[in-house]
Amino acid sequence: MSDDKRAIDPWNSTLPADYETLMAEFGIEPITDELISAFPSTHRLLRRKVEFGHRDLLRIVDSIRRNEAYAVMSGIKPTGEFHLGTMMTAEEIIFYQSLSDKSVAHYCIADLEAFADNGIPLEESHEIAVGNVADLLALGLDYKRAYIYKQSEERLVQKLAFIFSTAVTFNMLEAIYGPKQIKYYLSALIQVGDIMLPQTEEYGGPKPVLVPVGIDQDPHIRLSRDIAKKFKFVPPSAVFHKLTRSLLGEEKMSKRNPMSMMTLSDDPKLAERKIWSALTGGRGTVEEQRRLGGEPEKCVVFELMTNHFIDDDDELRKIYWECKTGARLCGDCKSQLADIVSSFLRKHQQKREGLMDLARNIVEGER
Amino acid sequence: MSDDKRAIDPWNSTLPADYETLMAEFGIEPITDELISAFPSTHRLLRRKVEFGHRDLLRIVDSIRRNEAYAVMSGIKPTGEFHLGTMMTAEEIIFYQSLSDKSVAHYCIADLEAFADNGIPLEESHEIAVGNVADLLALGLDYKRAYIYKQSEERLVQKLAFIFSTAVTFNMLEAIYGPKQIKYYLSALIQVGDIMLPQTEEYGGPKPVLVPVGIDQDPHIRLSRDIAKKFKFVPPSAVFHKLTRSLLGEEKMSKRNPMSMMTLSDDPKLAERKIWSALTGGRGTVEEQRRLGGEPEKCVVFELMTNHFIDDDDELRKIYWECKTGARLCGDCKSQLADIVSSFLRKHQQKREGLMDLARNIVEGER
Repeated sequence: MSDDKRAIDPWNSTLPADYETLMAEFGIEPITDELISAFPSTHRLLRRKVEFGHRDLLRIVDSIRRNEAYAVMSGIKPTGEFHLGTMMTAEEIIFYQSLSDKSVAHYCIADLEAFADNGIPLEESHEIAVGNVADLLALGLDYKRAYIYKQSEERLVQKLAFIFSTAVTFNMLEAIYGPKQIKYYLSALIQVGDIMLPQTEEYGGPKPVLVPVGIDQDPHIRLSRDIAKKFKFVPPSAVFHKLTRSLLGEEKMSKRNPMSMMTLSDDPKLAERKIWSALTGGRGTVEEQRRLGGEPEKCVVFELMTNHFIDDDDELRKIYWECKTGARLCGDCKSQLADIVSSFLRKHQQKREGLMDLARNIVEGER
Repeated sequence: MSDDKRAIDPWNSTLPADYETLMAEFGIEPITDELISAFPSTHRLLRRKVEFGHRDLLRIVDSIRRNEAYAVMSGIKPTGEFHLGTMMTAEEIIFYQSLSDKSVAHYCIADLEAFADNGIPLEESHEIAVGNVADLLALGLDYKRAYIYKQSEERLVQKLAFIFSTAVTFNMLEAIYGPKQIKYYLSALIQVGDIMLPQTEEYGGPKPVLVPVGIDQDPHIRLSRDIAKKFKFVPPSAVFHKLTRSLLGEEKMSKRNPMSMMTLSDDPKLAERKIWSALTGGRGTVEEQRRLGGEPEKCVVFELMTNHFIDDDDELRKIYWECKTGARLCGDCKSQLADIVSSFLRKHQQKREGLMDLARNIVEGER
């Protein structure tokens, strides 16, 4: 097992150093301008190649064009509030769901995994999940064309996991995941079950399924595609987004350090403070920055604008060039973003509050 | 891993050569006359020590005496008709259920295992299961105090399996089962889930559970007892019966050779023929047998009488001594047993026929 393989272990929180190497090694295709233009409409994440790679995304484009059924599938491990990373996945589901009226969204609340990995009892993760689903609804999911379920309640997923276990060997699992304890392999099989669920007879039979995920989840995609072939399912497609960095710098955003991450439930004032203390691409002194320009490529604040908070491409381009040419200082960006974020959070939290009852019904009542 | 350990592998069909060695090695207690006398009533299998060993059986005796709740738990892999081996387990469940009005029986239809081990699709095993449950009812199960379920439909069992996976390591599984593919380990965890189900809150919380099984299933009992301690369940009790031999001789009865085994759906005439061709403990010639007596210890026909078809101890003793003293020849035994068996099968099959609808409702409707 090479270091590269370990670098995209889904249970590891380091940011892969070189996405292109990983893509070449595992056969992930790049998102090209041609592919983007094949979609009926685009999204900031796709246009800006925050979604940088994919597997079989054309299959989904084809389904949209032919007006044929497809599913968008993702989920959340209900261990805490929605943060920018989970928001990104939610936005992707909502976007790809919106491209056709033949689409269906599947959203898995991975409460069994939250228990296995994080020791969170099912009753506790249940309450967290209600909040998570309220966030998902507030972000715009069309819940009438969505199936939202808890892993612990969806016996079909568990049945699939068991059935798929007959088709995998330890060698296969170890080649994909490295040596792990059985709970991880079982969890992997259950995730394959989640990914394949939209293709079961109960959910309308085989169809293209798009899974928007971080590249750290690619092992599950590879395992799913291997297994799909053995069980006559359509190999699931995937679109990979960049991992969301910590507000403070290099690492992948982590739920472990609250100041390193922003959640959708943060008090707007606290969120502003987090932005003011975030890492930028600024120079040592104002004079230097006026002379050399900033480094938006390194800047977390610019990344937040790009990936999450500024939809207008012209506006973003303007900010970029003002920074590069020294016309704009870090304080300008932080102030602008703090306003955008606190305003977004206020509106989002109000919407979310109004959707809590519906979210609870969905989490508790659909089964 | 010693050969002895492999000899009681549940996925192996050889008959353990020396039960006593196995019992000593794994800490299985012998069934003693004292223990038998502690029960309010007995059953041929217990009295004759066909049930030769146990773990914590006194816990069940205590529950009966104190009139406290306990469960009897077993199941069937729905791969074919009830045979003498599965009938024995069914009789044990029915007997231990009958000893108290505080008891409940749990009967698991291991359809996921039938798929994983034998490749039998769930729809097919479903139909087999309906017949199996009709047999169970015809044998006398009080279904009003029983929970009969298919593994594939009981999401609680699957949830338990997942949760228990967090508490086991590959070392632990390999020490118990030897090196196996993941489907076997997963199947083992699901069986532990089945065994623990009666102790979940949904089924009334922690309580003694008796699992009547062949000694080849002891690895599951050991794993269950290990896991029970970690999750504050009562370690399940077990009673072990001897494995049912093939009608033709030495091996464990197997579904693979129809002439080696008797099923409860056999045509009574066919069953008679099977008895006439069964292995006996007879001598080479009639003269020799008259002089030396037969060897009932080796005789499959005598074993069928002892384990399955003759309840009256005096009658059985009489047959034994007539054989030993040469007063009785193999034809006498075969003729007597053929009558008993064909009469039993006729009555049983008639009862079973009348219970098919109820069995179908139970298998399909309870969930």
